[in-house]
Amino acid sequence: MVDFKKTPEVKVLRDPVHGYIHVDLEVVWNVINSAWFQRLRRIRQLGGANMVYHCAEHTRFGHSLGVYEIVRRMVTEISDIKESLSDYEKVCVMLAGLLHDIGHGPFSHTFEAITTTSHEDFSCRIIEENTEITKILESEKAGLAKDVADIIRHEAKNPLLSQIISSQLDADRMDYLLRDAYFTGTAYGQFDLERILRTIRTHNGNRLVVKQSGVYAVENYIMSRYHMYWQVYYHPVARSYENIMHCMFQRLLDIKDAKAFSLFETLVERKEITLEEYFEMDDYSFSFGFNQLCNHEDKILNDLAKRLRDRELFEYADNTLENTERYRNKLEELGFDIHYYLATDKVRQTPYIPYTKDAESMIWIRMKDGSTEELSNASSIVYSLTHGPSQDDNKVFFPKEAL
Amino acid sequence: MVDFKKTPEVKVLRDPVHGYIHVDLEVVWNVINSAWFQRLRRIRQLGGANMVYHCAEHTRFGHSLGVYEIVRRMVTEISDIKESLSDYEKVCVMLAGLLHDIGHGPFSHTFEAITTTSHEDFSCRIIEENTEITKILESEKAGLAKDVADIIRHEAKNPLLSQIISSQLDADRMDYLLRDAYFTGTAYGQFDLERILRTIRTHNGNRLVVKQSGVYAVENYIMSRYHMYWQVYYHPVARSYENIMHCMFQRLLDIKDAKAFSLFETLVERKEITLEEYFEMDDYSFSFGFNQLCNHEDKILNDLAKRLRDRELFEYADNTLENTERYRNKLEELGFDIHYYLATDKVRQTPYIPYTKDAESMIWIRMKDGSTEELSNASSIVYSLTHGPSQDDNKVFFPKEAL
Amino acid sequence: MVDFKKTPEVKVLRDPVHGYIHVDLEVVWNVINSAWFQRLRRIRQLGGANMVYHCAEHTRFGHSLGVYEIVRRMVTEISDIKESLSDYEKVCVMLAGLLHDIGHGPFSHTFEAITTTSHEDFSCRIIEENTEITKILESEKAGLAKDVADIIRHEAKNPLLSQIISSQLDADRMDYLLRDAYFTGTAYGQFDLERILRTIRTHNGNRLVVKQSGVYAVENYIMSRYHMYWQVYYHPVARSYENIMHCMFQRLLDIKDAKAFSLFETLVERKEITLEEYFEMDDYSFSFGFNQLCNHEDKILNDLAKRLRDRELFEYADNTLENTERYRNKLEELGFDIHYYLATDKVRQTPYIPYTKDAESMIWIRMKDGSTEELSNASSIVYSLTHGPSQDDNKVFFPKEAL
Amino acid sequence: MVDFKKTPEVKVLRDPVHGYIHVDLEVVWNVINSAWFQRLRRIRQLGGANMVYHCAEHTRFGHSLGVYEIVRRMVTEISDIKESLSDYEKVCVMLAGLLHDIGHGPFSHTFEAITTTSHEDFSCRIIEENTEITKILESEKAGLAKDVADIIRHEAKNPLLSQIISSQLDADRMDYLLRDAYFTGTAYGQFDLERILRTIRTHNGNRLVVKQSGVYAVENYIMSRYHMYWQVYYHPVARSYENIMHCMFQRLLDIKDAKAFSLFETLVERKEITLEEYFEMDDYSFSFGFNQLCNHEDKILNDLAKRLRDRELFEYADNTLENTERYRNKLEELGFDIHYYLATDKVRQTPYIPYTKDAESMIWIRMKDGSTEELSNASSIVYSLTHGPSQDDNKVFFPKEAL
Repeated sequence: MVDFKKTPEVKVLRDPVHGYIHVDLEVVWNVINSAWFQRLRRIRQLGGANMVYHCAEHTRFGHSLGVYEIVRRMVTEISDIKESLSDYEKVCVMLAGLLHDIGHGPFSHTFEAITTTSHEDFSCRIIEENTEITKILESEKAGLAKDVADIIRHEAKNPLLSQIISSQLDADRMDYLLRDAYFTGTAYGQFDLERILRTIRTHNGNRLVVKQSGVYAVENYIMSRYHMYWQVYYHPVARSYENIMHCMFQRLLDIKDAKAFSLFETLVERKEITLEEYFEMDDYSFSFGFNQLCNHEDKILNDLAKRLRDRELFEYADNTLENTERYRNKLEELGFDIHYYLATDKVRQTPYIPYTKDAESMIWIRMKDGSTEELSNASSIVYSLTHGPSQDDNKVFFPKEAL
Repeated sequence: MVDFKKTPEVKVLRDPVHGYIHVDLEVVWNVINSAWFQRLRRIRQLGGANMVYHCAEHTRFGHSLGVYEIVRRMVTEISDIKESLSDYEKVCVMLAGLLHDIGHGPFSHTFEAITTTSHEDFSCRIIEENTEITKILESEKAGLAKDVADIIRHEAKNPLLSQIISSQLDADRMDYLLRDAYFTGTAYGQFDLERILRTIRTHNGNRLVVKQSGVYAVENYIMSRYHMYWQVYYHPVARSYENIMHCMFQRLLDIKDAKAFSLFETLVERKEITLEEYFEMDDYSFSFGFNQLCNHEDKILNDLAKRLRDRELFEYADNTLENTERYRNKLEELGFDIHYYLATDKVRQTPYIPYTKDAESMIWIRMKDGSTEELSNASSIVYSLTHGPSQDDNKVFFPKEAL
Repeated sequence: MVDFKKTPEVKVLRDPVHGYIHVDLEVVWNVINSAWFQRLRRIRQLGGANMVYHCAEHTRFGHSLGVYEIVRRMVTEISDIKESLSDYEKVCVMLAGLLHDIGHGPFSHTFEAITTTSHEDFSCRIIEENTEITKILESEKAGLAKDVADIIRHEAKNPLLSQIISSQLDADRMDYLLRDAYFTGTAYGQFDLERILRTIRTHNGNRLVVKQSGVYAVENYIMSRYHMYWQVYYHPVARSYENIMHCMFQRLLDIKDAKAFSLFETLVERKEITLEEYFEMDDYSFSFGFNQLCNHEDKILNDLAKRLRDRELFEYADNTLENTERYRNKLEELGFDIHYYLATDKVRQTPYIPYTKDAESMIWIRMKDGSTEELSNASSIVYSLTHGPSQDDNKVFFPKEAL
Repeated sequence: MVDFKKTPEVKVLRDPVHGYIHVDLEVVWNVINSAWFQRLRRIRQLGGANMVYHCAEHTRFGHSLGVYEIVRRMVTEISDIKESLSDYEKVCVMLAGLLHDIGHGPFSHTFEAITTTSHEDFSCRIIEENTEITKILESEKAGLAKDVADIIRHEAKNPLLSQIISSQLDADRMDYLLRDAYFTGTAYGQFDLERILRTIRTHNGNRLVVKQSGVYAVENYIMSRYHMYWQVYYHPVARSYENIMHCMFQRLLDIKDAKAFSLFETLVERKEITLEEYFEMDDYSFSFGFNQLCNHEDKILNDLAKRLRDRELFEYADNTLENTERYRNKLEELGFDIHYYLATDKVRQTPYIPYTKDAESMIWIRMKDGSTEELSNASSIVYSLTHGPSQDDNKVFFPKEAL
């Protein structure tokens, strides 16, 4: 990495998941210290799961550093990758790891649903649209901002770069599974990162493969992901919280009170969000805004805001015709507006998808005989999982008054 | 615990520090579900240490549950305590553990310094002044609110109750050391909680003692505390953050702009804070308020607010006459108002205080021969620590421009 | 447990897997202190896996205490079991957990294959045939020895007792997976024991069921087991070690040298082993004996003994017709007696067997609607695993000279 | 490390303490696979501590690999050391780490006391006296055996080499504290190895120093050592076991029965031990030998051997005049020969010795101002510990019959 300026000595940040995050490039250090990156301290990693796992208050800041650290290890410790990438590409992909979530907004799942924006779009805008981040990147090397954004957009010339950041076995997933497991306190997300890193190779210099001796570790990772989804991300209580937030926000949009809270104005008026506005949208400002709605004159709006603030969450049941009918009737009987008090939510999770449009997203195994097999052909466990009945969960949510 | 209503089945909350928090009393469950207790989700445990340890975003909510859980184990698993306390006292002390921090405000260290209030006072007000919490307690048993508050105030008849909650070896310290170690990712705060719990006994039914076979575990706990103070709580970077916040707030009070942010009005006007106002004061609302100050017309105020938001922290040096002189001159030369840009801060930590006014706060050891010795007489390590040179750290903080 | 004598205070043994092992019954304490039980310190838990995982030197002593501890927790902490069993049955099943492996000999897998004995038979003999153990049990309660042995023999009247000790989700498996994972240093065997214990119930007081909310934890346990088998127990290097031992022993039997080593005499002469002889057969005496064979005049015997001692293990390849043919020819060419230098070994592992003769061995789930389902009907993951292709591994082993 | 042959790919051995042990040099790999090194699998790390901590059955094999791994990291990851040593010295010191304990015999503490030999002497003999190890080293590079042995003998030209292997902060101590803590299951031995490695520098290229920012980690390490000594190594039950072994062996020497067990012959006849004999002396052969003594006709010998085998350990009390008098009288009254049934044992432990003859053994701190201070001058905690009352423990051991 000849051309990039080094820090005087290696900087380290203590991290419970990786031990230490190591930084030895000025450009990485400057990005971390920028106001936009520091903003990630105000965006939590998990949407509503902290309503179930009360310690899960960790932020995108730590996750972004963690992804960067895994990428850094991949491009410096795995010989095959080290040799397949130029020094410039290595820095690009480390920065892409660091910045892939820079565009996250508050309570992202719900936020994206309401605003019909995507955090990847915001990430690229923040990297390229002349922000402090853009300046840091461009002053290091003209064109760097675009090259980093291209990786995030899956438009990099070398497909290896996108695979490292975003595929079914990427630095992003590996960090968040380990991190979310640590902060929720569940054992489910644990897998053997060291083993996976030790067995990753490249195929023709442009595709990641895992040596057959690493298949057990990959199976373990697939299972971890599966369990984290059902036990954490899709936990009905977390979804109940997100559904109330969605209902409340919908009500705000419907009554079109643009003055309810300064930061909601653009959203209510359905204008495009500027980066200046977006900078101020974080978990803190939104939570404060939500809590302000507790005093709003609209009865539905203030009721939902209070339920959200005080964790008076909706109850839930399987979304059968019978159940939905029963709770709808009960709610109407009690005078609830079911448009805001009856929500349904169907989630579905496949531990691993063997056949996708792009081969880059799939996981490939280098067999002992030198051939390359797609994971589900190399692992009877994964084969079974992908050919068994898929699992989904369809629930109806409603106030406990309807029980 | 015959008289208190039980929950239909034991409720458990997953906790990374204790495995599970167990609740089997209705009154405890109702307190946890109250809006006041849920507010603790919005108050972080550590003031500025998350500026050093980026994952330390954990809240008073988890800590309060953790203290409750340790107290619960003490009164149900340690035979001596079990026999020394009535069922009523057991419930009182569990509730006192749960509620001891209910009165914490945002960024408490700094907040208390500025408002000259104490979180213990607020805790007792919230328990006794007819809030939702008061109602939950009183409806379970008339007089319960006062009995719980008395423990927090150190006015309980049975001294054992206060010792469990607040002494040099109490449930509060034991939880926060383990918890802060976990979320900062440092190894320093680890000690053998199981061993300590196993060796605690009572002396005459009203004083906690530790069996001599537990002395090593207590020494370890003392050392953990010592290291956590210097490595986490008193880390200069954490203190830099707190000092900027203090300077910024001081500026706000000095320019007396009561309209700067709604929640700061009472503080600026130095009126007494009502519980209704206090309920809204949390890390989220205050952080949002601080960030609003970035747009304030007062140059000093908006500059300090930006430094706080974007983590452009003050540098620091030992607070020697020479250093302070140098940085003061440099700052004045550069046009900084040193009233808000030069801060000094002296911290001092003693791992253990053997001679205090009240014997209840000290740690007592039951020797093999049946006698009871104060810890520093039973442990040569602790003797050495308390008789060696005490350690303090006196620093001066200033903008990096003055370097 | 009214009738059984209690120890003066609860005894605890520090254990890395369970924290502490708790003993408060005289009869349990006396069994632990007996010469027969102490002998388990000289019998390692794993046969050849310490040739792969160099730290896995842990013994049946620790495992037996661990199984006892899990059983103790099951009968004291799980309300349903607590109520389904009499005090006498509780003590019986704890003792059965403690003693289930008392009959293990050195390098058990290989030993059992050669002597065509089973360790369960020896366990029952040691419990019932007037040993020190028998005396301890009978002096506590006449008939106790038989009642304990009956549980191990699956002949207890209450089927719950055998299920706790030996079924597809029993204290034995739960301890050895966690323990072997800890001492090998693999992450694979970790699962959430606490969660499983918290969700176990009984059905009609005579069958263990797991609440549906524990299904994820059970799935995790099933996967752990699967991975531990392939990564540890069936690791080809471990099997290579066991195969050499088997070949060496076979050679000793074939040349019928009863004087080769005192403890091998009975085996060579194929007489029945007395308990007095069996007492002396442990890893230490057998390893010493094996090492003595390094000086034996028989060339094949001493060569194999040296390979075993110095870890000059056999190489391995897939047991295809082609491979076997090739290595056989090569070995014959080199003058090796293929009877002792070419071994084949096929292992097969099913993560979970849904349909067995006895319903007691299967895992049952109590669904939210109150019905009881067999695990593979309650978990789509387990369904997939049990309906997918089964996995086996068939290998041929030979000296590296044949490569 | 240009001249030394590399392995085709990096070999890794799974290790619970370090994650993985990495080997990429042929000479290291060959040493590990030699019969002498494999013999370390038969020598346990701890003498009698497994009588207290039942899982502590780990061996010198794992420890030797662990020391090697720490040395490997020190010479490849710490820039200062990397630059201070030649490639040849790096390989020498890694081999010295690997081989420093190669000369350990069974139950070393006791063995050394009886035979008045030292394991360091044997280590050097095994390295230099034409064994398989000597051949491996010399065939890689003439003179290598002596250069490795010189480091172990503290006769290396570069003092840095000995400091890495043997000083008050060396790879040996760092591995055994972490390892023994892991396998005993105590929390006491944990310290922050990563932090220490990150803050080690060299002074003038020939002395190790730790940066001031690592002082807390060093204090923690000092405390860990202190606690491990008192809680594990000097635990009275462990010492009781060692004392019985010593008494038993003494009896064997006194009755001069050279035929009692083949391997004891040289010891009984007090001849010099040949390396061929020494190779066969391991925990397995000695334990078998001890168990054989249970059938010896000498009553004292067989009684002590049985106590050892069946863990009927001696009781203990403080070695006061009064106690010793009492137990001596009681034992004589009961007909015990006090020469073999009354043992005294005084242990003493200083957490850190600031003033030693050789400056190389001390721990040095590089202060922020660039000066170098001895640890006790840089840490008030360590100052207190080294100036406080020293701690010793003087006990008398005797059969429980004398209680």
